[in-house]
Amino acid sequence: MPKRKDKLTSAIGWSTPDRINVHGLDLPSEVLGHVNLGDMAFMQVTGRKPDARESVVFNAIAVTLVEHGITPSALVARLTYMGAPESLQAAVAAGLCGLGTVFVGSMEGAAKMLYAALPKGTDGADLPAIAKQVVADHRAAGKIVSGLGHPVHKPVDPRAPRLFEIAAENGMSGDYVALIQLIQQEAEAASGKALPINATGAIGAICCEFGFPEEIIRGFGVMSRAIGLVGHILEETRDPMAFEIWQRAEEEILETSGPGRG
Amino acid sequence: MPKRKDKLTSAIGWSTPDRINVHGLDLPSEVLGHVNLGDMAFMQVTGRKPDARESVVFNAIAVTLVEHGITPSALVARLTYMGAPESLQAAVAAGLCGLGTVFVGSMEGAAKMLYAALPKGTDGADLPAIAKQVVADHRAAGKIVSGLGHPVHKPVDPRAPRLFEIAAENGMSGDYVALIQLIQQEAEAASGKALPINATGAIGAICCEFGFPEEIIRGFGVMSRAIGLVGHILEETRDPMAFEIWQRAEEEILETSGPGRG
Amino acid sequence: MPKRKDKLTSAIGWSTPDRINVHGLDLPSEVLGHVNLGDMAFMQVTGRKPDARESVVFNAIAVTLVEHGITPSALVARLTYMGAPESLQAAVAAGLCGLGTVFVGSMEGAAKMLYAALPKGTDGADLPAIAKQVVADHRAAGKIVSGLGHPVHKPVDPRAPRLFEIAAENGMSGDYVALIQLIQQEAEAASGKALPINATGAIGAICCEFGFPEEIIRGFGVMSRAIGLVGHILEETRDPMAFEIWQRAEEEILETSGPGRG
Amino acid sequence: MPKRKDKLTSAIGWSTPDRINVHGLDLPSEVLGHVNLGDMAFMQVTGRKPDARESVVFNAIAVTLVEHGITPSALVARLTYMGAPESLQAAVAAGLCGLGTVFVGSMEGAAKMLYAALPKGTDGADLPAIAKQVVADHRAAGKIVSGLGHPVHKPVDPRAPRLFEIAAENGMSGDYVALIQLIQQEAEAASGKALPINATGAIGAICCEFGFPEEIIRGFGVMSRAIGLVGHILEETRDPMAFEIWQRAEEEILETSGPGRG
Repeated sequence: MPKRKDKLTSAIGWSTPDRINVHGLDLPSEVLGHVNLGDMAFMQVTGRKPDARESVVFNAIAVTLVEHGITPSALVARLTYMGAPESLQAAVAAGLCGLGTVFVGSMEGAAKMLYAALPKGTDGADLPAIAKQVVADHRAAGKIVSGLGHPVHKPVDPRAPRLFEIAAENGMSGDYVALIQLIQQEAEAASGKALPINATGAIGAICCEFGFPEEIIRGFGVMSRAIGLVGHILEETRDPMAFEIWQRAEEEILETSGPGRG
Repeated sequence: MPKRKDKLTSAIGWSTPDRINVHGLDLPSEVLGHVNLGDMAFMQVTGRKPDARESVVFNAIAVTLVEHGITPSALVARLTYMGAPESLQAAVAAGLCGLGTVFVGSMEGAAKMLYAALPKGTDGADLPAIAKQVVADHRAAGKIVSGLGHPVHKPVDPRAPRLFEIAAENGMSGDYVALIQLIQQEAEAASGKALPINATGAIGAICCEFGFPEEIIRGFGVMSRAIGLVGHILEETRDPMAFEIWQRAEEEILETSGPGRG
Repeated sequence: MPKRKDKLTSAIGWSTPDRINVHGLDLPSEVLGHVNLGDMAFMQVTGRKPDARESVVFNAIAVTLVEHGITPSALVARLTYMGAPESLQAAVAAGLCGLGTVFVGSMEGAAKMLYAALPKGTDGADLPAIAKQVVADHRAAGKIVSGLGHPVHKPVDPRAPRLFEIAAENGMSGDYVALIQLIQQEAEAASGKALPINATGAIGAICCEFGFPEEIIRGFGVMSRAIGLVGHILEETRDPMAFEIWQRAEEEILETSGPGRG
Repeated sequence: MPKRKDKLTSAIGWSTPDRINVHGLDLPSEVLGHVNLGDMAFMQVTGRKPDARESVVFNAIAVTLVEHGITPSALVARLTYMGAPESLQAAVAAGLCGLGTVFVGSMEGAAKMLYAALPKGTDGADLPAIAKQVVADHRAAGKIVSGLGHPVHKPVDPRAPRLFEIAAENGMSGDYVALIQLIQQEAEAASGKALPINATGAIGAICCEFGFPEEIIRGFGVMSRAIGLVGHILEETRDPMAFEIWQRAEEEILETSGPGRG
């Protein structure tokens, strides 16, 4: 539990009758029209505007996380909206609730693994040796390596090389990107299976290049997916699938588990 | 209830082992590195990339909606995170649940009012007469005009003129922006009170310039606020306020409503 | 917006180091072991223990609302749990988010209709005339009558007569129950279709017999369904369906809307 | 990830036009009027009706979990309802999202600890030796013992002895209850501090007597709290506190972190 404190404080911003300040900047004159939505997300997390290169890389990460097709999360938002169309916000909220350890958590897991293997500020590390150790430790513990492997995208997740390219073009490709690539090679060699770096692995590594605190990395997935879910809800208003999915499930269960079967 | 359908369909995107498509574009080569997060949000809602001017205006709208200080929604996200720090996504979700008719709904309300008064595609309307009628109708019904008035920002909400300026500079200031400004003048004259166009009113009007369907406008608030809430949760990990707010409330209620008082 | 107030107050309860009070009763000695969970729900809403007959009727209402099979809400809880098994609470929360106007709202709608037609405290009303008027008004407005009709349970929803029986046996069957039955007969006669009183209609009417405020009636559905959803999540851990539903949807959409089709 | 399966199945229940079955029972004739809400919750988790003694004990557990005063969860529900009063269900959902590891998790933690120390089906164990070992292990690991200690209720949490009494009166007090009491004595002796068994500790132990799977125990807290939150929302409609809490926080932060301070 946190300690009691005398006064509540917040460095995010403030407003008076004629001024609105966020992260030390005047919102109307210094932010609106000057930054894009990804930059604003960067500001919320770091407290400062990204420079031009950081902006490109961070926006690419955030854009990657917006849309992953008919995910469980998208199904949840659509099914929820069917029951409460007056509460679009609750349908998005419901969709976000499932972005836990199984899906979005792998981004956080990749970053944690990289930070643990190569603490921030380390210089001149023997990356191949570290990669070998990481893979050996995971194999000894019977654990999969976060950020590697994809059920569909084999032998390559096409987002990963593109994200690494964007990072490299903008000076954001350093030891963490190199390390996850070495870990991937080790893991493939050790397992004899295709284990591509997936999008969450690439993003986890690039987040380490930014130095983002690991406990907030999942938040990038959450914010981006909120955007994606609004798109799914809009499509659901025009071309619904929730009702059909529900009816099929009910009918199938009545057939398998109904009177005389259950 | 929707009808049954033979096959589920979705135009949002698809993926195969080596390709990922969103809205008809190849995600790695045509989207990543080419669009910012606000553009991607625009694509989720319209199915196409914004042009350069649309991008500026839409990003300004979305950025405006990210951060509104210590709102109920931010308090909710922080209080939820205190109890379930392992579920950042659920803390964001909880914060979004309150973005209903009272707060974010006013943006939707302003757009609905403008679309009702001036149906899409109307040309050459008598805007001053329409404005007069809208205000008269609201006064007769004893209803406030959505998008006008602000508890703190008086006599002007500084976001509104800046958003109108950005819209005008980018060719997105037409009859809907003109109409809400006329409505504002009428409403102030009729009521004798300062009734500035607030941020949600300006955004509602600009959304009408874009032609966005009114049922999705609330979604812009929801997606942007998800970004803002991640920032609040990160600050809560460093400079918590939830515990203090909770303890104060408990102590005060024990004092006012405890043994011998309740 | 509510007014500012000097002091926060709450009549729900308080605790000191050695005492815990809820609704004026000592929790350990006067509540635990003396009331069941439905009684406690009744206390939360009314501030007092139910008498023996109220307890039977209220528990029957609440029990009816726990489990409705593979509803959208159950699918949502299961799909959410698949992604975030560490957050059972968020899976239940996600499932609750869809209990809006389309499903649970009909219970509230039935109660609103009955209270509007027969204000609390009315004595000696001409119920057949009121029923005729209610049906005529709904038909004139092209609106369906809340609480009537069911997609599966025809010509009778077997829960409704049983709930009315329990209410009658316990002295809770008065003018509101009579009125909804008259409305049902009128509506069937006017439409020529089977329009059984469904479970939410019966519950709405019995809630009016209790005199519950209409704005809280939806809450009975929400609290009971929370119980039901925990059961679905437990089954999902043993006999999962979420993954299969997700995979089928993805595959079908790839087929209908994938490369060359979308 | 689960495996694909040919057919979805569910043992919870089914309905046909004239019948509704839950857990193998006819809902109208065998459940409604025969079980209370706590019994129905028991059925959702175990698939069978409780016997009379199980009913008393399980209802006492569930009732204990309904209402814990002005918790963060109650504040969240109230703050959410202020923004979206049209979505009572989303306010309850938001409130549930915070029932994670910090609060309700301790019940699960106590049960996990007890099951680990004394696997189901163990007979004739040396309970004092086990208790000593459990406390020693926790102290060696620098971890607190789940289910012991309370910030307010010292030296005794009055719910715990009452729950143990109800369990004993109904034949549900066995080795797990004995073990947590021994653990408590060991922990107090070892630490020299008052470490009462708290309500979640007592409930965790009694859940082990029932043999409930540990992964569902948190669910009892979630379902009961959903009931409690409906009560808080109803009080909020009559005696609001959310607006005042919000305004105070905003004002205080403007004072500490506003222009010239931030």
